[in-house]
Amino acid sequence: METNELVELEQIQAVLEDLIQQRHWTGLKHYCIELDSVVLADSLRHISTQDQALIFRLLPRDFGITTFEYLDIDSQTKLIKGLGQSQVAALLNEMSPDDRTALLEDLPGPVVKQLVDLLSPTERQIAQTLLGYPENSVGRVMTPDYITVRPEWTIVQSLDYIRTHGHDKESLDVIYVVDELGKLVDDIRINQVLTVPVTTFISDLMNDSFVALIVTDDKEDAATKFRRYDRTSLPVCDSDGFLVGIVTADDVIDIVAETDTRDIQQLGGVEALDDPYMQTPFWVMLQKRARWLIVLFIGEMLTATAMGFFQHEISKAVVLALFIPLIISSGGNSGSQASTLIVRAMALGELKNADWTKVLKRELLSGLALGSILGVIGFTRVVFVSGFTKLYGPHWLEIAITVGAALLGVVTWGTISGSMLPFILRKFNADPASSSAPFVATIVDVTGLIIYFSVAAIILHGTLL
Amino acid sequence: METNELVELEQIQAVLEDLIQQRHWTGLKHYCIELDSVVLADSLRHISTQDQALIFRLLPRDFGITTFEYLDIDSQTKLIKGLGQSQVAALLNEMSPDDRTALLEDLPGPVVKQLVDLLSPTERQIAQTLLGYPENSVGRVMTPDYITVRPEWTIVQSLDYIRTHGHDKESLDVIYVVDELGKLVDDIRINQVLTVPVTTFISDLMNDSFVALIVTDDKEDAATKFRRYDRTSLPVCDSDGFLVGIVTADDVIDIVAETDTRDIQQLGGVEALDDPYMQTPFWVMLQKRARWLIVLFIGEMLTATAMGFFQHEISKAVVLALFIPLIISSGGNSGSQASTLIVRAMALGELKNADWTKVLKRELLSGLALGSILGVIGFTRVVFVSGFTKLYGPHWLEIAITVGAALLGVVTWGTISGSMLPFILRKFNADPASSSAPFVATIVDVTGLIIYFSVAAIILHGTLL
Repeated sequence: METNELVELEQIQAVLEDLIQQRHWTGLKHYCIELDSVVLADSLRHISTQDQALIFRLLPRDFGITTFEYLDIDSQTKLIKGLGQSQVAALLNEMSPDDRTALLEDLPGPVVKQLVDLLSPTERQIAQTLLGYPENSVGRVMTPDYITVRPEWTIVQSLDYIRTHGHDKESLDVIYVVDELGKLVDDIRINQVLTVPVTTFISDLMNDSFVALIVTDDKEDAATKFRRYDRTSLPVCDSDGFLVGIVTADDVIDIVAETDTRDIQQLGGVEALDDPYMQTPFWVMLQKRARWLIVLFIGEMLTATAMGFFQHEISKAVVLALFIPLIISSGGNSGSQASTLIVRAMALGELKNADWTKVLKRELLSGLALGSILGVIGFTRVVFVSGFTKLYGPHWLEIAITVGAALLGVVTWGTISGSMLPFILRKFNADPASSSAPFVATIVDVTGLIIYFSVAAIILHGTLL
Repeated sequence: METNELVELEQIQAVLEDLIQQRHWTGLKHYCIELDSVVLADSLRHISTQDQALIFRLLPRDFGITTFEYLDIDSQTKLIKGLGQSQVAALLNEMSPDDRTALLEDLPGPVVKQLVDLLSPTERQIAQTLLGYPENSVGRVMTPDYITVRPEWTIVQSLDYIRTHGHDKESLDVIYVVDELGKLVDDIRINQVLTVPVTTFISDLMNDSFVALIVTDDKEDAATKFRRYDRTSLPVCDSDGFLVGIVTADDVIDIVAETDTRDIQQLGGVEALDDPYMQTPFWVMLQKRARWLIVLFIGEMLTATAMGFFQHEISKAVVLALFIPLIISSGGNSGSQASTLIVRAMALGELKNADWTKVLKRELLSGLALGSILGVIGFTRVVFVSGFTKLYGPHWLEIAITVGAALLGVVTWGTISGSMLPFILRKFNADPASSSAPFVATIVDVTGLIIYFSVAAIILHGTLL
């Protein structure tokens, strides 16, 4: 939303509240139906639930349902409580089944039961079927609103059928051909149907090749298939090949955005919030953040343990301590670069488990190259500073060499572990996104210290240590 | 792609190569046309360009074009070079305009000119128009393949028009109503057209309300509109309201995935790769990684400078050095949590600039809470270890208090700066994703050290310091 849209929404909200205060019901109704239902839904967001309910009672049936579908789940839930039972029943019966599933799956069990009881027998059966599929499965996002035709029908027959049955179908871009039992046998684009002579048989348009989703598939797999096949809708079959629904690309856009949000949050070291930032209750968010921070903190405590072993070296050469943050952060940065690239490539299906050797080769070279670059910069910096100050003492050249060599080692190690950890996690059926980046940082910090002090022990032996 | 699909692809590839080696051309052709074009395209990926060209010469025209469209841009480019001019002309003329734009915009200027010259006058004009829109604009991803009707037409007239003009249209889910000049006046879903009596006028179906994209809009804005309005296609108008194309949801799925990939890579401290990991040339990838690592490294060099000022304190109390990695990494982790959450919420349009005060309040509380939790754990750890060892010396309690208090300060500071930096970057029209997470880490590391040693100076004054 851009700023002018925001201003517009605030103005609409003000008008709505004004009309309600004046109890000017006909004016309110006429004002609302002149608006686009998306705009009305957005304007309602900051209006009290009580006033929202008032407005919904005035709206014409169809317009009310569309507006209701555009509200976020949170507002829908509150509104359901504010409306009378008959109106809730009307809304729920008329909502598209996929939007209804999204609303119902967010509500507590007893409320769902109550609401499902308000549905007509047909809609109740649809709702119960959809809610019966596993969470995050294709079944939860599909809609049973599609058109099926039979191979032996002509175009005329098919169009007649569409005329009587196509009214509230979610998408008519593709129609589906099923056999006498209901098994999917082909998909036909509506433009094929509309551009041949009306006496043509459906079977003449069939090519016996179609792509379908399985109802129990994970919904992320649906997104991958949509990306691969460039479709705006895909049919959904049960395990026996019977057509049970369709998924449309608008829902897939939401799935992709939602999955990526989860991956991004996990890469940033937070448990996925599941709700928008501002709508997530403070305590829920705190828990999700604290849990990961504590895990990472406990991991990082190993650095204090490791440092304990080097206390003697530090006391002999305090100058070594000065470079600790620089060296471990370089390892962490190179590790998180590598793990981010690999985790994303995995999520997009670009990398298979078997690719790990190719990746290892590539990342080993990258790590050595990046490590050399940073090593040279680090070396130069120490030499340069020593030209002007006595900060690093008489053995500044040895220290410069130590810093340069440690950087080469730490960055190479960070790059390799960052790129390999996602493969290891996936091997053990863990989600690479959920832990790679933060784990890498912790692993690299501890081992980075060991690398640094080992290099120092070798190079500074006999001089500072 | 799952493993069995991969195996399948390898088998197909082997058969293809075998048939080519035997020079069994009819067998090859028949084998290919039995495959799904997506599967064929995927199997061709690892076959030499020369063999690919051989196969494409055998394929029936339409099947060849579909298969070509499913190849990735990289393979398309190579293949174009391997095919004869007449076949390239046929492919380019028949490709859907949006896929063609995607191919052409990836090629060097002179090649584009050559290829555009191969197009028929009509297709050439389309290609030149699409390439004339700014990079990353809606104009580059739209297709001019849509159906327009006029308000005064009846359904019969409209269906007749579709029958003659609808054959190669990308999507017929929605048809567009334009006035005599070509200005968009409404959009009508195809099921509305197909479910009313055929004598109905188009104007009877119009509600004079439609949502359109502007051709010069950023393509990410298109994605936001698709998400907001739940559409499978949206019309594109120029600034005067003339209809110039449509964008379909399958392309938007790609846009969302692409945008998120860029954001994820930038949050991981890499410049966006733009190509899949394995297809990005080694030197290009190295450059993109090195550039950010160097920037971060130079930032982190400030930690060495800061540490220089505390050299005296460290030499007096070496024990302080032991907790440096633990404390700065806790600041970094809490900062990257906060910045990731805020950057993603911004990308999804959940947070506006004006929300910064609300966010600040929320994050201040989160930071204090998270800092207290880690502070208590850190304190406990020092106390606990001191119960068993003499590692932290006689003043272990003061050290425990220092560590606990420093953690509270560093985590609170990390959380606040992590959440506020994205707002500051956006205020200056910089992309929050491109620099927040890595910048936060650097800022927090340097200030974290200062906080730690300042706290130590206060608490350990008179004992260790």
